[in-house]
Amino acid sequence: MEDYLKKRQDLIQQDRALRPDQTYVDALSLEERKADNVLRNIRTYEAQAVWNGDKPAKHEPGPSHMFPGMAFLTARETIVNTELFKILGKMPKGGLLHAHLDATVRVDILLRFAIQQPAIHVRVSEPLAPNTLRSVLPQFRPLRKSEWTNIPSLTDPQYSSGSWVPIQNARNNFSIEMGGPEGFDRWVIDALMINPSEAYGTHNTTTKIWQKFSSTFMVSNPLIRFAPIWTQYIREFLLSSISDGISYVEPRIMFFMKNMFGEDGEENIPHRVWFQMYERVLNEVKEELKAQGREDDFLGSRIIYSTMRSISCEELEWHLSDCLALKQEFPHLVAGFDLVGHEDSLRPLIDYIEPLLKFVERQKELGVHIPFIFHAGETTGDGTAADVNLYDAILLGTKRIGHGFSLYKHPKLMEICREKDICIEMCPISNEILRLTGSMPMHPLPAVINHGVHVALCSDDPSVFGNMGLSFDFFQVFVASEVNNLGTLRMLVWDSIKFSSLEDQEKQRAYSALDRSWTKFIKYILDKYGGSFGDKRPVSQ
Amino acid sequence: MEDYLKKRQDLIQQDRALRPDQTYVDALSLEERKADNVLRNIRTYEAQAVWNGDKPAKHEPGPSHMFPGMAFLTARETIVNTELFKILGKMPKGGLLHAHLDATVRVDILLRFAIQQPAIHVRVSEPLAPNTLRSVLPQFRPLRKSEWTNIPSLTDPQYSSGSWVPIQNARNNFSIEMGGPEGFDRWVIDALMINPSEAYGTHNTTTKIWQKFSSTFMVSNPLIRFAPIWTQYIREFLLSSISDGISYVEPRIMFFMKNMFGEDGEENIPHRVWFQMYERVLNEVKEELKAQGREDDFLGSRIIYSTMRSISCEELEWHLSDCLALKQEFPHLVAGFDLVGHEDSLRPLIDYIEPLLKFVERQKELGVHIPFIFHAGETTGDGTAADVNLYDAILLGTKRIGHGFSLYKHPKLMEICREKDICIEMCPISNEILRLTGSMPMHPLPAVINHGVHVALCSDDPSVFGNMGLSFDFFQVFVASEVNNLGTLRMLVWDSIKFSSLEDQEKQRAYSALDRSWTKFIKYILDKYGGSFGDKRPVSQ
Repeated sequence: MEDYLKKRQDLIQQDRALRPDQTYVDALSLEERKADNVLRNIRTYEAQAVWNGDKPAKHEPGPSHMFPGMAFLTARETIVNTELFKILGKMPKGGLLHAHLDATVRVDILLRFAIQQPAIHVRVSEPLAPNTLRSVLPQFRPLRKSEWTNIPSLTDPQYSSGSWVPIQNARNNFSIEMGGPEGFDRWVIDALMINPSEAYGTHNTTTKIWQKFSSTFMVSNPLIRFAPIWTQYIREFLLSSISDGISYVEPRIMFFMKNMFGEDGEENIPHRVWFQMYERVLNEVKEELKAQGREDDFLGSRIIYSTMRSISCEELEWHLSDCLALKQEFPHLVAGFDLVGHEDSLRPLIDYIEPLLKFVERQKELGVHIPFIFHAGETTGDGTAADVNLYDAILLGTKRIGHGFSLYKHPKLMEICREKDICIEMCPISNEILRLTGSMPMHPLPAVINHGVHVALCSDDPSVFGNMGLSFDFFQVFVASEVNNLGTLRMLVWDSIKFSSLEDQEKQRAYSALDRSWTKFIKYILDKYGGSFGDKRPVSQ
Repeated sequence: MEDYLKKRQDLIQQDRALRPDQTYVDALSLEERKADNVLRNIRTYEAQAVWNGDKPAKHEPGPSHMFPGMAFLTARETIVNTELFKILGKMPKGGLLHAHLDATVRVDILLRFAIQQPAIHVRVSEPLAPNTLRSVLPQFRPLRKSEWTNIPSLTDPQYSSGSWVPIQNARNNFSIEMGGPEGFDRWVIDALMINPSEAYGTHNTTTKIWQKFSSTFMVSNPLIRFAPIWTQYIREFLLSSISDGISYVEPRIMFFMKNMFGEDGEENIPHRVWFQMYERVLNEVKEELKAQGREDDFLGSRIIYSTMRSISCEELEWHLSDCLALKQEFPHLVAGFDLVGHEDSLRPLIDYIEPLLKFVERQKELGVHIPFIFHAGETTGDGTAADVNLYDAILLGTKRIGHGFSLYKHPKLMEICREKDICIEMCPISNEILRLTGSMPMHPLPAVINHGVHVALCSDDPSVFGNMGLSFDFFQVFVASEVNNLGTLRMLVWDSIKFSSLEDQEKQRAYSALDRSWTKFIKYILDKYGGSFGDKRPVSQ
């Protein structure tokens, strides 16, 4: 019997030996071990007290009953009231390595920014009525001053489809029948987010939810791509990330459109000016934090140049040259290059192989380095073009992989990722809402970690999903596995710096800052919860 | 470029090198390659024509739109009308290695058997009314002749809860308001099956659907455990399996209850008589097929002795002794030993380790061999007791693993399964209906195959799920991956014999029979579909 238990322990250890959190687990301090115990006890306690599988879930459609790691949009209200979420909210997160800039700011805040801009006008292509409110989307655009209108309302019977209405008029005079100004806000917000009844009811397949998902970007794009809003947007993105404990961000910025709208409504601001604006805001935020003595809280940002995986090879060549020119002008800001969009329906990497290989050559000639940081394998497909993107991403030398959802199926590719330190930017809540997985316990993250592949947890498009910051993704991951522990959290945080595009020296600074804030975090856990949840056995209050 | 494509091809090959179907793929004959082409073309064609992702799905709740491998209960009607399903229906399947005997016969047939037995009575514990029809379950039991009643109806206002009504009376006089005799049938069938609105609506979590799932066994058990029905049931199980192309069955039989009801209504028929009855029916079926010149169609059956994973260690010891005694009396019938039931909520294998280890010792003393064939890892849990069952199953030397749903997370365990030829009995439709996975494209089967682990496809509890035979499971697996091909099907079929409990000589006979029926199957594909779907390019009619 003793012999059996020994063999069993050995086997479990061998099975987990590849996990990258093993070194972190082994190195946990005494205080960290106590905090780990607290976290596990709270997880066990809340699994019963909060997520009890016999308790009906609040929203329909969605899971009928509660469980840890259940569908996020249904669970969100419950999550924010858990002790575990409150704790994870205080955790220093390290870097955010996968987020699309144009989906990182709460949509109500974006709307507030838009309302403040008299240049912003809105129109609809079909009459708005209570029964079309869900299907007719707002189209926004900043207009040149000469084009500004005085049209009083979008919802007047006199309104003629396609005419531009100043956003304030549209909002103030939104028909009472459709909720007045608040109804306008709801209408816009619904067009910018995925709600539970879409994700789990009307659009609960990957194909369908991607249609809604894509439409949110169509609505928000002309707002965000307006220079006065863009700078506010970046600032809000940085500040809200920092307030969630994120100390470095590496957003993907979409450069598919060649120009931004200026304050005068002209669509003529080129990419290099976008970078100048980004840098200005970044430096302002850094200065403000410095002035507050909070330098540890934020180390900066770099940008992953992105365009759509729907373009032609010729268009891609333009973007690659554009990216190279930007790298030469802003070497400290350009972190990498990526192609984005729905992998299941858009073009695979292999279609672009010639320009991409040429790009690598061109970099060598110019003595610059712009790593690929490709989306790949964001699919449930097996052997489909989207799944096969993983082979091309790796052969092209990708620095990290965006999503890599289907990576767990590929033994050789996991081995290569493990050996070449290719980190996977996993976006669990995004994957679940976009219906690649039904819930966190079904997500392949544990398989990938168990195979020794490094992972950075990411939020992807938090404004659309409602998973602002990284606390929600950490929460969903932490509650969905009994193997996860404080060492796993620490690994995920430290790896998000290790696999970032920061220079070595900057990384050292980031680790030191993390060490300090982590110590405070551990102390916070023990001070606040050590008494009630510090016992070895789970507390059953 | 050429160099890149070469490297790419090599990488894909390396990644798939562990797949056990590789040798089958390499060995495909010219005719088989043509048939493979036909199958792929039909799959591609039907993916668009039938499973088009923009087409609304027929049933709610469930997936909103169609896709290949979607939720089975919603897709079933569509599946049966596809050409691919018609083809797979003709495919020789080899062995069925994981099915619980008491859930293998269509419930309408079981009900017909029951109606023919005047000893069978039924009662309810609460009054039946249109609004309680869904929640009040029928309780069946064969009564001793002296206990038979003349109570006319279950639904009369005079009916007193708990009184036994002869099944024919209950059916004939079922209230018109509740549908009359057909309403009775629907009520019983609903209690014996999982319907789409339960799986995808009211009970769409693992915990909840298991409650309904377990209740179906409570309802059917006293019917099946009645000797006159039991023999009919076995016969129907064998014949319906054979008609789906299954040539060997290795069902798990539940020996949790110590006695069966005899024709006289006494609950006094011990396990050894169950075996005698089973053997008698088995031999009758074999003789009948022989008389029809169809010896190739059926090679026989062995039984996996099963009891519940809820019992005490003392009770387990009784069952282990019972199993040993049965093995000594029926060495050719006892294939193995298993513990069954909901792993997430019942006892883990480690609880039983002492009696199980003693059992192994005792076998050595007696010179018999009863391999464990354990259910393990039928869970989405990670590091939970149910997941950890995998370690114990393997350490205890399990011959195969029932389900092994969570195996894909475990690199060392997959390596051991690969090296020790531990086959995984995967039950994809069962897993989906019991909400371990949302659909086939989310199922871990491809990951397990890619890691070189052998798999046998199984139906688990087809009477409850409606996936009679193996054609449905083969269908769902085949359409959910572009990597799957005729070689994969061939591997799954041949492996179901290789990893069965047949003796070597019997296996050789089985392979020869399979060779003959497989050749006919290939000819059928080419004759019927070679014209319309034989082109290299997918047909877009």
